[in-house]
Amino acid sequence: MHFYARPVARLIDELSKLPGIGPKTAQRLAFHLLNAPADVALSLARALEEARTAISYCSVCGNFTDDDPCFICRDERRRRDVICVVERPRDVVAMEKTRAFKGLYHVLHGAISPMDGVGPEQLRIKELFKRLEGGEVLELILATNPNVEGDATALYLAGLLKPLNLKVTRIAHGLPVGADLEYADQITLSKSLEGRREMK
Amino acid sequence: MHFYARPVARLIDELSKLPGIGPKTAQRLAFHLLNAPADVALSLARALEEARTAISYCSVCGNFTDDDPCFICRDERRRRDVICVVERPRDVVAMEKTRAFKGLYHVLHGAISPMDGVGPEQLRIKELFKRLEGGEVLELILATNPNVEGDATALYLAGLLKPLNLKVTRIAHGLPVGADLEYADQITLSKSLEGRREMK
Repeated sequence: MHFYARPVARLIDELSKLPGIGPKTAQRLAFHLLNAPADVALSLARALEEARTAISYCSVCGNFTDDDPCFICRDERRRRDVICVVERPRDVVAMEKTRAFKGLYHVLHGAISPMDGVGPEQLRIKELFKRLEGGEVLELILATNPNVEGDATALYLAGLLKPLNLKVTRIAHGLPVGADLEYADQITLSKSLEGRREMK
Repeated sequence: MHFYARPVARLIDELSKLPGIGPKTAQRLAFHLLNAPADVALSLARALEEARTAISYCSVCGNFTDDDPCFICRDERRRRDVICVVERPRDVVAMEKTRAFKGLYHVLHGAISPMDGVGPEQLRIKELFKRLEGGEVLELILATNPNVEGDATALYLAGLLKPLNLKVTRIAHGLPVGADLEYADQITLSKSLEGRREMK
């Protein structure tokens, strides 16, 4: 029993693979894309292809970029003596939106989570230590999420970093515990950045 | 001030044009597509292109199809003496899922709605009358949505059809008034089909 022409079924199927998109929403999106001018679907298709072929990870910070190093790592107006360590590219966006941070970033691509089988070796920690070799960096802000995994990752990094004699800070728990950095409002996130304390 | 590499910004922009997808969801979807294996984004891109190039409207019933006439209009096992008139292609899917209807469809592509500037001339009514010329059709089931616009459209059609001396029925208002055909459960929709009454 099939309800759709084959290309429609395929489009619905592909759309329903997206996170948070169930079969009903996928059908609604597909029918919208088929009813709208052809350009709407084709622009989206081209944007997907372009993003997927042009975008990779910055070899320095690990953020998404179409240029290596990325536009943040290349930006000469930014401070090079402070690096903000985050879990995900989306956290860089959240930080940038506060306009409260003018240094560089380092994206770990995850947090330590034994439950999910993620250990320190899966994170971009080696790359972080490589960036510290020049001696240019004076402070590391650990801005992993204020939840169990993020706190564990920050503690683990603070331990590793101790011998290097850097200033290592953790963003303030102005954020509600258990929350997600991505969804914090910009003022709360700014405050948590201001109130950061050195990790002993 | 920009937060994303250009191809990422473009992908987020295209995704947020979809109905019900705000900027935050668009960013989440884009980052998911960039993190997932390249195939996920590229399959979606190909599905969009294929659907948009292969799919058009069936010249007979007006449903989405990659073949003309569509697989429903061509299906020899279906009754050809009864046509179910619906507003949208999604309503054909809703009807088909009930498995309670074995005739043909006619998609109007909307309902009369003076508020939205939609009059009878924008609907596929001329095409419907053309299908009735052969004299093969004995019953028309008006399955427009059970709301103001759908009821108005059904009344208007019933008036136009009167001279043709056909059986013209309206699906029963077993559906809650003001509801949307697409979101009705299958039993309610089946009941409303069974309980249809002739329009005088």
